Amino acid sequence: MFKRNGKQTIFFENSPYIRAFASSAGKKETEGPYGRFFDVTTEDAYWGEQSWEKAEGKFVKQALSVALKKARLAPEDIDYIFAGDLLNQCTGTSYALRDFYIPYIGLFGACSTMGLSMKIAAMTTDGGFAERCCAVTSSHFCSAERQFRYPLEYGGVRPPSAQWTVTGSACVIVDKFEGDVRIEAATTGKIIDKEIKDANNMGAAMAPAAADTLLTHFLDTGRKPDYYDAIFSGDLGKVGKSIVIDLMKKDGYDLSKNYFDCGELIFDESQDVHAGGSGCACSGLILCAHILPKMLQKEFKRVLFMPTGALMSPTMVQQGDSIPGVAHALSLYAE
Amino acid sequence: MFKRNGKQTIFFENSPYIRAFASSAGKKETEGPYGRFFDVTTEDAYWGEQSWEKAEGKFVKQALSVALKKARLAPEDIDYIFAGDLLNQCTGTSYALRDFYIPYIGLFGACSTMGLSMKIAAMTTDGGFAERCCAVTSSHFCSAERQFRYPLEYGGVRPPSAQWTVTGSACVIVDKFEGDVRIEAATTGKIIDKEIKDANNMGAAMAPAAADTLLTHFLDTGRKPDYYDAIFSGDLGKVGKSIVIDLMKKDGYDLSKNYFDCGELIFDESQDVHAGGSGCACSGLILCAHILPKMLQKEFKRVLFMPTGALMSPTMVQQGDSIPGVAHALSLYAE
Repeated sequence: MFKRNGKQTIFFENSPYIRAFASSAGKKETEGPYGRFFDVTTEDAYWGEQSWEKAEGKFVKQALSVALKKARLAPEDIDYIFAGDLLNQCTGTSYALRDFYIPYIGLFGACSTMGLSMKIAAMTTDGGFAERCCAVTSSHFCSAERQFRYPLEYGGVRPPSAQWTVTGSACVIVDKFEGDVRIEAATTGKIIDKEIKDANNMGAAMAPAAADTLLTHFLDTGRKPDYYDAIFSGDLGKVGKSIVIDLMKKDGYDLSKNYFDCGELIFDESQDVHAGGSGCACSGLILCAHILPKMLQKEFKRVLFMPTGALMSPTMVQQGDSIPGVAHALSLYAE
Repeated sequence: MFKRNGKQTIFFENSPYIRAFASSAGKKETEGPYGRFFDVTTEDAYWGEQSWEKAEGKFVKQALSVALKKARLAPEDIDYIFAGDLLNQCTGTSYALRDFYIPYIGLFGACSTMGLSMKIAAMTTDGGFAERCCAVTSSHFCSAERQFRYPLEYGGVRPPSAQWTVTGSACVIVDKFEGDVRIEAATTGKIIDKEIKDANNMGAAMAPAAADTLLTHFLDTGRKPDYYDAIFSGDLGKVGKSIVIDLMKKDGYDLSKNYFDCGELIFDESQDVHAGGSGCACSGLILCAHILPKMLQKEFKRVLFMPTGALMSPTMVQQGDSIPGVAHALSLYAE
């Protein structure tokens, strides 16, 4: 089954810059190892709103507003905003963006959205269609649980393979001219489905797609994992990460030294999140609170950032169908 | 509130070509005025599948397969596929595309997806990132009703402003080098919400977004409506179309002569669809069965194609929130 399409990995002619980035995060995330690096945080799952869905929108508005402020830009300075999230009809982002009046490209990539949105923003900028774009995504534990699994009030027991949806939002401003970290290349993923049907084991559902994108990236570029200071997958968690390491080992790629998973990093062992974090905001928050700050400090000079998405439909799972996965990789470098 | 962002309308440097296009459609659509122009049709709402959602996927597979066949291409010849639909998690397209192994960019634009996907495909091609891309979308009356309104078995009475979701799928292949119709320019819409809360009046919810995109397009290009042989909005239906005509008249643009709405065209009066058709496939089917064939015959030389989307979330409507709209316009010309 493995084959590569012609332009699956692209190199940007003038690597677009990341001009600014910002994150907003909830209570549990703030208590985690990266808590002090988030820009705006709240202890209230509702953040003063009347529903979890509206609260998720507030996380988006906060991340986007702070990113614009850091870049000294107004919404009318942004040519396009690329956005999506986990909720049906992408309401986390699409409802929040009503207040900004920025030309809108809605995306659906589930938890891969941070990578998907940055990639399309980079293509749009490098292709000459924009000077600056925003890429934004969000997730919320409470809104995601209610939509994808059980009502929170039901108090369902979570199996060890389950992951914890991250509450927060991340926003990156991609600019043609200004910034210190640049987007060099992108590998777009294919939809890969190895017939995992367990909605509490998303890591296993996404791992084959992650391995497919990684393998494609290495073959297309002729690079090995040690070309990068660090490689980050999005939200595979412990279970999915170990599958990716095994799958890549079979193809001769050693990921044991510099490969991390954002879902494994965002919470620590004491936080009782089983296999780790997940959700669109998971890789977004680690990007904005860990990867990009370390790149600005030159601790990482070359990073492969690969958010992963489970295109999981409760309707299809109820009908006995499985969970397709996708992963999009971006090569970032600090000048 | 009205303002334009810097690059909201873009002109492609080398207008990408439409190399091939194909459509698949259901029974009611086939009985309508364009029935004989669809490539593949079925009388069975399930099309031999076990659910309406899986049937919707079959419409996608059929449209994509026929478009590839017409272009004499295999899936591995396609650099990227841009796809999305109305269903939660875009399952109509994302589950169907598992079988094709084409690098996948998931989009969410509700019923504007045909325009959104063609625009991003054109940007990707013209930007030098692809030689050819597919743009595909779908909708299905039964899967949409169950998700957005009532179970079909309930037999709810439909008010006169209600529209009928079109069953089918459309696929366009955008190519850097080959074809007879070209994509000249695109105007990306903003999310506009005039606080319509009635899920049975999507036309009114989308009309302000349609007028906003149209006005932006005319101001950005300096063109008047009569520059185009025909202007098509996506699926505003009778109610929404008349609002757009009124709104544009206030701004000094006369749409009375050459403006059509795909939702008004796809069914005829006798089919009892109230305000007209809707759904992602509505503008897609009219594009593939009417607009593009007429452009190949040079009956239309310049067309403005503007699919419209209601970013309607049942969850948000239940919470008393309103329905945001968006519209994306593409300028097409025949050589």
